[in-house]
Amino acid sequence: MSYKQVIYNTAPAPAIDPSLTSGTFRLNTVALSDNVPANKVLVRVHYLSLDPAMRQWLTAKRSYIEPVEIGAIMRGQSIAQVVAVGSDLGSKFKTGDWVTASSGWQEYAVLGVKEVVKVAIPPGGRPTDAMSVLGMTGLTAYFGMVEIGQPRVGDTVVVSGAAGATGMVAGQIAKIKGAKRVVGLAGSQDKCDFLVKELGFDVAINYKDADWRKQLKEATPEYINVYFDNVGGEILDACLARAARDSRFAICGAISQYNSAKPQGPTSFMTVISQRITVKGFIVFDFAKQYAAALKEMASWLEQGKLKRKEYIVPGGLEAAPQALVDLYAGVNTGKMMVEVAPVTGDLATKAKL
Amino acid sequence: MSYKQVIYNTAPAPAIDPSLTSGTFRLNTVALSDNVPANKVLVRVHYLSLDPAMRQWLTAKRSYIEPVEIGAIMRGQSIAQVVAVGSDLGSKFKTGDWVTASSGWQEYAVLGVKEVVKVAIPPGGRPTDAMSVLGMTGLTAYFGMVEIGQPRVGDTVVVSGAAGATGMVAGQIAKIKGAKRVVGLAGSQDKCDFLVKELGFDVAINYKDADWRKQLKEATPEYINVYFDNVGGEILDACLARAARDSRFAICGAISQYNSAKPQGPTSFMTVISQRITVKGFIVFDFAKQYAAALKEMASWLEQGKLKRKEYIVPGGLEAAPQALVDLYAGVNTGKMMVEVAPVTGDLATKAKL
Repeated sequence: MSYKQVIYNTAPAPAIDPSLTSGTFRLNTVALSDNVPANKVLVRVHYLSLDPAMRQWLTAKRSYIEPVEIGAIMRGQSIAQVVAVGSDLGSKFKTGDWVTASSGWQEYAVLGVKEVVKVAIPPGGRPTDAMSVLGMTGLTAYFGMVEIGQPRVGDTVVVSGAAGATGMVAGQIAKIKGAKRVVGLAGSQDKCDFLVKELGFDVAINYKDADWRKQLKEATPEYINVYFDNVGGEILDACLARAARDSRFAICGAISQYNSAKPQGPTSFMTVISQRITVKGFIVFDFAKQYAAALKEMASWLEQGKLKRKEYIVPGGLEAAPQALVDLYAGVNTGKMMVEVAPVTGDLATKAKL
Repeated sequence: MSYKQVIYNTAPAPAIDPSLTSGTFRLNTVALSDNVPANKVLVRVHYLSLDPAMRQWLTAKRSYIEPVEIGAIMRGQSIAQVVAVGSDLGSKFKTGDWVTASSGWQEYAVLGVKEVVKVAIPPGGRPTDAMSVLGMTGLTAYFGMVEIGQPRVGDTVVVSGAAGATGMVAGQIAKIKGAKRVVGLAGSQDKCDFLVKELGFDVAINYKDADWRKQLKEATPEYINVYFDNVGGEILDACLARAARDSRFAICGAISQYNSAKPQGPTSFMTVISQRITVKGFIVFDFAKQYAAALKEMASWLEQGKLKRKEYIVPGGLEAAPQALVDLYAGVNTGKMMVEVAPVTGDLATKAKL
């Protein structure tokens, strides 16, 4: 028996080329061995996480994480299931356990204990939550909004990339924390409708509208107290120009800039002085000690229906991942984007509520 | 008897035109009345403060202060001397008192009690200190460095506009607070020599050198923990690219951008995320409650010789102010720039140590 892997083939220049024959990635096939080392588990990958940060992993030199090396399996998290357990790990794992796995882009992976985390499904939760609202994207939203944005009752909060996995949670948390107006920016009318009708955003603006700046101005009559940025570029710039006195700008991502050879700087930067803005970048890993408490709070919001989740699952198996990544930067998804590497079928699907 | 005033004539477009006949400002002559209202003092202006923020006062719409209106006396602080006291103020002021005055650009001014502050000269101090190291520029350096930069023992601290009134104090404070390396950027070899030889900066870089970026890199082998920015533009950008993890960027000014019609945004902005930088703008007025404590500490540093002052006094009377302001943006000054509106002569000069 054999399984497939996606290998990082050539650096994007600067756009990702999704072709698996001549592009950024290539396919590799390896034999699947039954012989699992004593201190490892063999997992089968079901859902692969696609994240905006991935573009940075390919080329960024001085970033929060080492770049992926050419020739290596593409890095990525997944929701996976344990299919075989090494002899030393019998007390920790059993066949059938669901885990979040640092598997990379492959159908199966042999992993050590540090590369798998058993999924504890809270009341009202489901396994894929561990990779979205109760996983890294949800935690990113939580710490960026609660610790850096610090929304106060009555505040106006703006979130860019608001229909993405992180943005949608960030906006909902602002609302839970008492913000008066939560304004989301997203890239289609459908996404905007979703934000307002399903998630309770007060206003959603389609940044592809010609008059989005005017709409932003009208949506923020008392200026912006908190801005949660996932996109950078001209939306960040427009929000700087609308910043309120002593506002907090939580810089989470800059998806509009990742594929650009010459990044665009915020020309309204001088408002930072006149309005005494605090602009702070962050990486979720820095808050690792607070994960458990944050997850507990978010799980309770999920259970109470205060916090809603949304996933965007791409079918087509592992081979679909490169094109899905390109699509992620094009903004096709509403909610957490995942590639379905292997569907979950039968009893297990029911049991796992996938 | 009459005296002169400088009136804001036409908006700069975008550069200041120093001509007093067809430029940004014009001269006005008014009669000097002996009749001082009961609740006012008449002061004679001796030294006029020139500040980088002035360009913003002329046109910025949503800033920390209202713009100066066309036709009004140009706004500005001065070191002045009380020459007549209204009948109600005899217990508060007497002829000969030195004050910092919100006089605007004129030779004499009739001012209310809120527009004048008596200069208390600490041991080792002199009246003009109240407009520089123990005045707004010194306080700006203090709060920007101590409250926002928060240099720690062992830190690498970079200051731009380091030979200016604020920058030179900011760098010295970093050193006093235990920074390991204080690096200044300035616009001439003379200024650089002054920073290293007179003020104890570890390294000074002439940003007009073709290889200043390389020099900056070499001067910050452990990256930059604190950056105190007076200039914005490409120096801010280069410092973002050299930022250390969890660094603090205190944004005080952006003199390189004030006269530019299309401001330049920092293209290395994405380092804000990867290095978790805190970028914070500030205005000294926000720290008003802490002025007294800060001045006490700085006066003691002055007395102990830990903190050195430097003034750059432009002769030529009030008429010299417009050209001096242009020269300020061209960076001619080392230290606090003042225009000598009226020299101090005789006994008074000796007594006041001016």
